[in-house]
Amino acid sequence: MADRKAVTADPAKTDARRRHDPELRGFASDNYAGAHPEILAALALANGGHQVSYGEDEYTAHLQSVIRSHFGSSAEAFPVFNGTGANVVALQAMTDRWGAVICAGTAHIHVDECGAPERVGGLKLLTIPTEDGKLTPELIDREAWGWDDEHRAMPQVVSIAQTTEVGTCYTPEEIRAICEHAHERGMKVHLDGARIANAAATLDVPMRTFTNVAGVDVLSYGGTKNGMIFGEAVVVLNPDAVRAMKHVRKLSMQLASKMRFVSVQLEALLAKDLWLRNAQHANKMAKRLAAGVRAIDGVGIKYAVESNAVFATLPHDVAERLQKRYRFYFWDEAAGLVRWMCSFDTTPEDVDDFTEAIAEEMGKR
Amino acid sequence: MADRKAVTADPAKTDARRRHDPELRGFASDNYAGAHPEILAALALANGGHQVSYGEDEYTAHLQSVIRSHFGSSAEAFPVFNGTGANVVALQAMTDRWGAVICAGTAHIHVDECGAPERVGGLKLLTIPTEDGKLTPELIDREAWGWDDEHRAMPQVVSIAQTTEVGTCYTPEEIRAICEHAHERGMKVHLDGARIANAAATLDVPMRTFTNVAGVDVLSYGGTKNGMIFGEAVVVLNPDAVRAMKHVRKLSMQLASKMRFVSVQLEALLAKDLWLRNAQHANKMAKRLAAGVRAIDGVGIKYAVESNAVFATLPHDVAERLQKRYRFYFWDEAAGLVRWMCSFDTTPEDVDDFTEAIAEEMGKR
Amino acid sequence: MADRKAVTADPAKTDARRRHDPELRGFASDNYAGAHPEILAALALANGGHQVSYGEDEYTAHLQSVIRSHFGSSAEAFPVFNGTGANVVALQAMTDRWGAVICAGTAHIHVDECGAPERVGGLKLLTIPTEDGKLTPELIDREAWGWDDEHRAMPQVVSIAQTTEVGTCYTPEEIRAICEHAHERGMKVHLDGARIANAAATLDVPMRTFTNVAGVDVLSYGGTKNGMIFGEAVVVLNPDAVRAMKHVRKLSMQLASKMRFVSVQLEALLAKDLWLRNAQHANKMAKRLAAGVRAIDGVGIKYAVESNAVFATLPHDVAERLQKRYRFYFWDEAAGLVRWMCSFDTTPEDVDDFTEAIAEEMGKR
Amino acid sequence: MADRKAVTADPAKTDARRRHDPELRGFASDNYAGAHPEILAALALANGGHQVSYGEDEYTAHLQSVIRSHFGSSAEAFPVFNGTGANVVALQAMTDRWGAVICAGTAHIHVDECGAPERVGGLKLLTIPTEDGKLTPELIDREAWGWDDEHRAMPQVVSIAQTTEVGTCYTPEEIRAICEHAHERGMKVHLDGARIANAAATLDVPMRTFTNVAGVDVLSYGGTKNGMIFGEAVVVLNPDAVRAMKHVRKLSMQLASKMRFVSVQLEALLAKDLWLRNAQHANKMAKRLAAGVRAIDGVGIKYAVESNAVFATLPHDVAERLQKRYRFYFWDEAAGLVRWMCSFDTTPEDVDDFTEAIAEEMGKR
Repeated sequence: MADRKAVTADPAKTDARRRHDPELRGFASDNYAGAHPEILAALALANGGHQVSYGEDEYTAHLQSVIRSHFGSSAEAFPVFNGTGANVVALQAMTDRWGAVICAGTAHIHVDECGAPERVGGLKLLTIPTEDGKLTPELIDREAWGWDDEHRAMPQVVSIAQTTEVGTCYTPEEIRAICEHAHERGMKVHLDGARIANAAATLDVPMRTFTNVAGVDVLSYGGTKNGMIFGEAVVVLNPDAVRAMKHVRKLSMQLASKMRFVSVQLEALLAKDLWLRNAQHANKMAKRLAAGVRAIDGVGIKYAVESNAVFATLPHDVAERLQKRYRFYFWDEAAGLVRWMCSFDTTPEDVDDFTEAIAEEMGKR
Repeated sequence: MADRKAVTADPAKTDARRRHDPELRGFASDNYAGAHPEILAALALANGGHQVSYGEDEYTAHLQSVIRSHFGSSAEAFPVFNGTGANVVALQAMTDRWGAVICAGTAHIHVDECGAPERVGGLKLLTIPTEDGKLTPELIDREAWGWDDEHRAMPQVVSIAQTTEVGTCYTPEEIRAICEHAHERGMKVHLDGARIANAAATLDVPMRTFTNVAGVDVLSYGGTKNGMIFGEAVVVLNPDAVRAMKHVRKLSMQLASKMRFVSVQLEALLAKDLWLRNAQHANKMAKRLAAGVRAIDGVGIKYAVESNAVFATLPHDVAERLQKRYRFYFWDEAAGLVRWMCSFDTTPEDVDDFTEAIAEEMGKR
Repeated sequence: MADRKAVTADPAKTDARRRHDPELRGFASDNYAGAHPEILAALALANGGHQVSYGEDEYTAHLQSVIRSHFGSSAEAFPVFNGTGANVVALQAMTDRWGAVICAGTAHIHVDECGAPERVGGLKLLTIPTEDGKLTPELIDREAWGWDDEHRAMPQVVSIAQTTEVGTCYTPEEIRAICEHAHERGMKVHLDGARIANAAATLDVPMRTFTNVAGVDVLSYGGTKNGMIFGEAVVVLNPDAVRAMKHVRKLSMQLASKMRFVSVQLEALLAKDLWLRNAQHANKMAKRLAAGVRAIDGVGIKYAVESNAVFATLPHDVAERLQKRYRFYFWDEAAGLVRWMCSFDTTPEDVDDFTEAIAEEMGKR
Repeated sequence: MADRKAVTADPAKTDARRRHDPELRGFASDNYAGAHPEILAALALANGGHQVSYGEDEYTAHLQSVIRSHFGSSAEAFPVFNGTGANVVALQAMTDRWGAVICAGTAHIHVDECGAPERVGGLKLLTIPTEDGKLTPELIDREAWGWDDEHRAMPQVVSIAQTTEVGTCYTPEEIRAICEHAHERGMKVHLDGARIANAAATLDVPMRTFTNVAGVDVLSYGGTKNGMIFGEAVVVLNPDAVRAMKHVRKLSMQLASKMRFVSVQLEALLAKDLWLRNAQHANKMAKRLAAGVRAIDGVGIKYAVESNAVFATLPHDVAERLQKRYRFYFWDEAAGLVRWMCSFDTTPEDVDDFTEAIAEEMGKR
């Protein structure tokens, strides 16, 4: 009987120790936040007993109906570990060896994944400079040509991000226009939805409105920034747009053995409204921050605040002093542009304290 | 104030629902088990507040001292998502574009990763047939030649698994002989430790005895099968054996944003003895199963039972009937060879019930 | 007018100098031979004036009809630079990102291309040990399974070599059996024809008999060893077996800008019978060598002499002394196995001199 | 004796047939030209007898001293098949798995190689828009940052082209400034010299002046456009800038078996002044064409004519009518920009006829 002891151990018992202050929060990244308590509760609930590994479990099976409730009956979710994984799996499944992906010059797949698309998938990215992180049919046309020219990597996919890397949102109409334009030219559309929940909260529409309804073929669904401990999903909206998803996920090293623990987190987010609550809250905090910052002379807001991000310009010395009090990142150091992110766990007090700190440091000039 | 509500929600509340029987367990795979309760407790403890993402958190920092307590002062851990990821990150960091990896024909990297080493890393595997999953210096020599020959992929790494894919264990002396042999020829040694804890439990020695002390340069530390919800680590024992680990991990899409949740699980396993308790228990259950099976006429045990695996031969009709009662896998269907795995949560009753079922089905012949 | 002078310069004029003895020939490799004079004549004839580059020239256009005269009306040739290029272009065009290629353990793609299939194409090779370099349906079945298993690289192509790396020839019936077996299992068949002409000469049948007539989908046509200065061609026999050949050739860096010079060489070989004359001669010389060697006590012939290769076993000291007089390669040094190759320019005197040298060195024991 | 007959056949005899008019020349590409007669003479001279394959021949050995006479004592040449091959071999040998290459947005490696750098080498290209195809230290700085950031592909090489894709030339001082800038930041410099001879002819300096003397580490030496039938060479100027060149060349499928035929062509070009004669002539023809075109109202010259290229703007209808008489390419169809290339075999009469044709078509408006 002693053998069962470990299994029934007091859940509070662990040899690990707390090493951080759970009351300290900042504005550096929505990845700095932990997990929403309801997510941890979901993990516990999915634990115990044996479940078939590698995605044949009950939680992954059920996840499909949850996903379909958001994205329609053709949708299928393929849980993966992280956002880079979701993007690169999706893009590989959507392209051939000779394919290219058109994206904005600010795209995460281009600037923030250490070349994973190129190295793992041999993908060629055709990047286009944008004003605000958003592509348009006209911009896409700069690279959407030459399909028959063997000297040119063949444009097969347009990849957009919703929200964009600079926190802006496409309207459903803008995405529809991109999808129509791409489809007319034989290209598919991928949507990097690392912060898709924030976009839905801003637009105040169901996620389907700006994805499958607008013509998006495949999306990377972002769970981590929305309150999970880890986990994303490639959501295939148009089954004809991909091939061999399961093989591609496996060869890309994104197949979780105990997948139930990814799927149940996604269920916890999406079964009802946790995804939206978390996003709405984070967005609200960003609006509050932006409002506070706008009242401070000498600090500018660069992009429309349409998600949980605030991009601000402020004097370099102020930024540096502020960074000693709060960790955050320069987006473009030469331009004095910084990025502040809110999260599902950011509190109004956090925002007000930070705003005050900004004002204080500006006052020292 | 309402904004803080989500953050302080009752941990028991979640929109996810339990969809499985937590009392049902089988013998198909140690990946079918969930997580040890102490692991879930560790996740909760690391939650809350903000921690720097991508590995600059306190838990990952502390993990290094935990790892060094097991593997010596030169060891450094690089947490990753899964075993394939650990192996392919390690092997890429150990090789050049022109490198090859010598491994057993049964190696997981060869037979069970959908070609991830080749596709993600362009790695050439030089495989060698073995009797029992174990390489020897003599076997290695079949492929360890031709370093100056540009027509040949250059053998740069010998990769062994401890335990092997067929559940056998190398002695520390056997590993030492392999490492000396490899090093003399300018090759490095990688150890796939997806079940390293089970090997340590069987050998009854510290893990360092058959890794860094024996000359292993880099290992893939397996946490998932040992009771984590997900997570492994590349543990670099010889810093000169790798290059740019952090970049390689990132480009391989194995960098967790909220890494604290991988690291704290590893801490929970390794800070004291959870890793060993779990492994000892699983091994003990395998021994019990093997003993029970040996008593059944017509069922054979193929490989030495030196971990949590039992490889058995039994008549095909019996296997098929048994599979209707318990899910498990054929290892070599033509040879009538099946694999039964025990886990940290397997109970003696589980084993005895299964043994009885085998006997029953054999009795129907 | 002086400007035209270079163009009409005396063809004998060049600033390069002869640096070798054009009368010295050996038995190390058919790649040691130069080009057949008719090949050089063809180059001169295709020279002058402008021709559209990258394959839209008249010579490449005409090559198609030459190829069809040998391989039937569905055949299409894609000239490339070298044999590794032909193989890797063909295999990439025949497979998906998740595909695997079944081949003999002796296959050139496995042992002699520095991992190009893996590195350039991410191809997984599933190798099978053979007695004589030849696969059979039974041997293929060792790896032909698991198409639905995402953990396994999906077997999509069987690649055979005709002649094999050890100089043996498949009969047309043997190839037909392999093709039927592969096709029934949804796999395609690639034939590495680096020495396809030698096989046709041995079998005394048209090349189509053991390629498209037997069911081969795609072949690598070997020109270099058959007397060209450089150049091979991927010959697609079954258009449904490949995708985007032109893009794959380009991205594999195998697209010649002045392709007319590859195509006209292939025309010179194939328009009438130069390919066959060259192969028959080389094979005849190998037979003469084998006959001579068989008369020498203590020297053995290992494989059937069915092409221009003779694999012989002889005492190590004899091999080493002989290598001081004639350069050639050990095939398996431990086994005392050496490889001697004849070429289109090998003379009976060359063979007789070499045979005498072997006998002399044997006599010194 | 009959067996020797093929070998001593009349060099004029071949089963191939002439299929083009050797007096027809155009302005579409310097790749449309054939080979210089002195190149064919060199091939004949290197023919006959046996030479060690894969680069151990006398011609490749001697080539090294020829290369050193141009590029100094540290230079080493690695002959390859084509320009894409030279570039991708060089860049792979200069980078690690995690490296990135900074280049102009017009770079051939980016726009004209079907993604070969990404697909074959997993290389990440960081492209920068330029006015005239030329990078500067200031432009380079847009992407030269973040070496320690694992999220960013690490900039390890700056790749420039001399001449650029738009026919412009860097001065030696400009290249020196780039090299110093790159080296100070730990990056190496690669020069794509597909038309390096044209640059030397324009600058009227030895090639070393703007390569190794200026700090370039590795260059792709272009032979094909300069009058060879095929063949280029990676020329390593700084041995510390590359690793395992021979293995990288082989695994990139760029290793010629009968390498003597590449090397002797390079010798023919470089032993004395054929390379320069050819380039000077082509440049002179481009100057003549530009002068003629400038005299025609309504036709503009876009970039400085510093090599064998003329980029002209002309009305779309004129361009289209002209294309019916002479094949050439639009460079930017929307902008009405076309590219006209001269070659070593372009005659003054060719230029004058073409100029007259342009004037005629303009006159029809």
